[in-house]
Amino acid sequence: MNEVDLGLYFVSELVGTALLVLLGCGVVANVVLAKTKGAGGGTLMINWGWGLAVFAAVLVSAYSGAVLNPAVGLGLLLAGTISLPMFLVATAAEIVGGVLGAALCWASYRQHFDAEEDPANKLAVFSTGPAIRSYAHNLVTEVIATFVLVFGIFAFADYGDVNVGVPGGLGPLAALPVALLVVGIGASLGGPTGYAINPARDLGPRIAHAILPIKGKGSSDWAYSWVPVVGPLVGGALAALAAPVLLGLAG
Amino acid sequence: MNEVDLGLYFVSELVGTALLVLLGCGVVANVVLAKTKGAGGGTLMINWGWGLAVFAAVLVSAYSGAVLNPAVGLGLLLAGTISLPMFLVATAAEIVGGVLGAALCWASYRQHFDAEEDPANKLAVFSTGPAIRSYAHNLVTEVIATFVLVFGIFAFADYGDVNVGVPGGLGPLAALPVALLVVGIGASLGGPTGYAINPARDLGPRIAHAILPIKGKGSSDWAYSWVPVVGPLVGGALAALAAPVLLGLAG
Amino acid sequence: MNEVDLGLYFVSELVGTALLVLLGCGVVANVVLAKTKGAGGGTLMINWGWGLAVFAAVLVSAYSGAVLNPAVGLGLLLAGTISLPMFLVATAAEIVGGVLGAALCWASYRQHFDAEEDPANKLAVFSTGPAIRSYAHNLVTEVIATFVLVFGIFAFADYGDVNVGVPGGLGPLAALPVALLVVGIGASLGGPTGYAINPARDLGPRIAHAILPIKGKGSSDWAYSWVPVVGPLVGGALAALAAPVLLGLAG
Amino acid sequence: MNEVDLGLYFVSELVGTALLVLLGCGVVANVVLAKTKGAGGGTLMINWGWGLAVFAAVLVSAYSGAVLNPAVGLGLLLAGTISLPMFLVATAAEIVGGVLGAALCWASYRQHFDAEEDPANKLAVFSTGPAIRSYAHNLVTEVIATFVLVFGIFAFADYGDVNVGVPGGLGPLAALPVALLVVGIGASLGGPTGYAINPARDLGPRIAHAILPIKGKGSSDWAYSWVPVVGPLVGGALAALAAPVLLGLAG
Repeated sequence: MNEVDLGLYFVSELVGTALLVLLGCGVVANVVLAKTKGAGGGTLMINWGWGLAVFAAVLVSAYSGAVLNPAVGLGLLLAGTISLPMFLVATAAEIVGGVLGAALCWASYRQHFDAEEDPANKLAVFSTGPAIRSYAHNLVTEVIATFVLVFGIFAFADYGDVNVGVPGGLGPLAALPVALLVVGIGASLGGPTGYAINPARDLGPRIAHAILPIKGKGSSDWAYSWVPVVGPLVGGALAALAAPVLLGLAG
Repeated sequence: MNEVDLGLYFVSELVGTALLVLLGCGVVANVVLAKTKGAGGGTLMINWGWGLAVFAAVLVSAYSGAVLNPAVGLGLLLAGTISLPMFLVATAAEIVGGVLGAALCWASYRQHFDAEEDPANKLAVFSTGPAIRSYAHNLVTEVIATFVLVFGIFAFADYGDVNVGVPGGLGPLAALPVALLVVGIGASLGGPTGYAINPARDLGPRIAHAILPIKGKGSSDWAYSWVPVVGPLVGGALAALAAPVLLGLAG
Repeated sequence: MNEVDLGLYFVSELVGTALLVLLGCGVVANVVLAKTKGAGGGTLMINWGWGLAVFAAVLVSAYSGAVLNPAVGLGLLLAGTISLPMFLVATAAEIVGGVLGAALCWASYRQHFDAEEDPANKLAVFSTGPAIRSYAHNLVTEVIATFVLVFGIFAFADYGDVNVGVPGGLGPLAALPVALLVVGIGASLGGPTGYAINPARDLGPRIAHAILPIKGKGSSDWAYSWVPVVGPLVGGALAALAAPVLLGLAG
Repeated sequence: MNEVDLGLYFVSELVGTALLVLLGCGVVANVVLAKTKGAGGGTLMINWGWGLAVFAAVLVSAYSGAVLNPAVGLGLLLAGTISLPMFLVATAAEIVGGVLGAALCWASYRQHFDAEEDPANKLAVFSTGPAIRSYAHNLVTEVIATFVLVFGIFAFADYGDVNVGVPGGLGPLAALPVALLVVGIGASLGGPTGYAINPARDLGPRIAHAILPIKGKGSSDWAYSWVPVVGPLVGGALAALAAPVLLGLAG
């Protein structure tokens, strides 16, 4: 591997994940909170919003290969694409970026958080929650959905995308494919749990929800918080193990 | 033709079709089943979901050229692009993949299947059914819609897409065009029959519906099951015959 | 100019326009007619359906450069890109293709035409009509909207798209840009007249409406029929005259 | 820098911004005004309409690098990509283009403006307004949203887009990325203020609203007009300063 400047790597992952979460939580705020112009915009709007959040985030974190997600990072680590220090630095940056992006979303929608009466809607802007609570079933859904994400990324990571700064991860040409993949996963597998499919996307904003002085906020639902962390990590690891065999890349 | 490893070919088609059906049936589950986050998401959301299911499936089955559909396979066979053994292996893999993908969809939405009261909605997640039942008219619609699909694939298959593993079928650069084509066909021609346009996409999940222990399920509607098999095969064959003449490719 | 086989040119334009109208009228049928699966799908679904109809049509008529529209053809003629015989052959093919595509749409949705009670909805599947009837204002809207279409096509036709068969018109790489342009024009300027922006797209299906034995059909509204012919031709001609100056291509 | 023909530069920016505003204000007219075919089309339709307006506008103003937005222009000026005369000429052209595009939108929807009874809906077609009025909060939202826009443009401007006429700004290959970025920003951050993110897009149409003889129009809300000018300029400037550091481009 080339030498990696871990400081720039950290910044690139932090910036990308902050933008991902700002735009991703933003579209939920637009659809869910009171008195916004997008109130009642519907599920497809949320799916497009999150997908295009990924699109923008991949573009701005091209230096680090746009890992943006500890489940993707774990897959790249298991595949030998990135090193353990890179994985650890990326993961830390992603969680901090998630907190920062959620805080920026709160700043952008400050008055609408204040005008919203239901604490559950406020939390829904930040973190995912299950439609029907059952940790085992919710975990299965997150494992399957994240498997699809990381498996899909392995599929097109093999087709000549040029990375900008460091080895591993996605270059800017992958921004559209991965965005469309995320729109599709959201529309298709987001029904039961709201598709975290990324520990940093869920944990970072949940930390922000807990520490920010949000008017009239309720519980941060820490009891559920392990599901969107463990499920995606398991799904990402399984995808990394399965990809060489199932994609015909082995040997 | 180059030599083809039929084992890898089988795996590639199975994986691709399983992902196609997981995501495709998934978006219907999200819109149709009880208590999901996407309930009532609308027809356009289903169209995008199925189109992006194709997008992801083409990417992950690049080794085999992403046939993914016996109607496409029959067209490629008639055009001399793939061999009879390849067609037979692909078709078997696609049907098995369809069963597997439907089972994964059921696992992902398990609680919502349980919470759904209408057996017709449960079947609708798996297989297509006519809006107004009339085998002759329904067959005509499936023939026309599949003709458009396979004819369109022949049009852009001619423009230099690079295949990865074996000759024939679609390379990863075709993932977006074929996805958009499927979104368009769904929006435009999906109204009467729900656009199977793929025997494996309909038959595989119907088998899964029949054998899985789905709580409160009703009939698998085998009486209709031949329409989304025969219609697409006829449409695909007609497209393969018409393409050289109508696309200006002959001579 | 290279030598053009006008027979193949005719076929290519006919096939492309037939597919354009089949899918374009199809999405209106899906949203408007009784008992379809897409009933009430909304305006954005119609916009995407027509845009993706253009996408598919450009791909399958790459031989002739996908003119598909007499207003585009007139612009290319005035710009000296295609010859008068080519323009006349293309226009004839486009009108015949429009009739054929509309007939195929009727075949696809036969039962839903029969089940639909409002004759106005049946005509709406075939041809455009004004939201508020006023020939002068309706004409202005069609002129402006078609100007945008043809002006936009001139803009990206200049950037190296490779045509397949004959000089002029659009190659397959232009399928996505022109499709997105049509989605945008429909969403933005389709409100007053339903955006014909193409004489063949409106006149062909109106002829089909007049001659097909559609159960319970009403008037074909010939009084309005000149607006979606004259407006687009004027808009296309103006765009061809304006493009060299306004796009910075002159000199 | 190469020598720039400031006359052609002016025309290119004027044409692009006029098209941007015609299509952008057009989609709002379609969704908001009385008796249109798109009435009630929803927020996602507006987001796509504005994004595709950007798409078309970038294509037709490729000569000047499609600045189209004084906030982008200020960013390019601070980054040393364009000169002060270019910035001033572009900004003037963009404001004039905004007035012109808004007038064309009014011409296209003339009867629907006349049929609309609520003056607030008429103004909403032209210019943005806050969902909950609070200049400080509204300003923060516009700063953040425009930062995302200009920061994103700096990210992909670095990856080899070829400009056509003059240095700086965006070439035609950037039309799709910037369009998707704008769809995403609108869906995610448009809830509180309707996402001006462009002084010319808001000020030009507001001037048009003030001077055009629109039947039954109300106030042009000049009290708010500084927010969508100052906010985007601040956001664009901050993005230009942050980009070299945060994108890993420095050094």
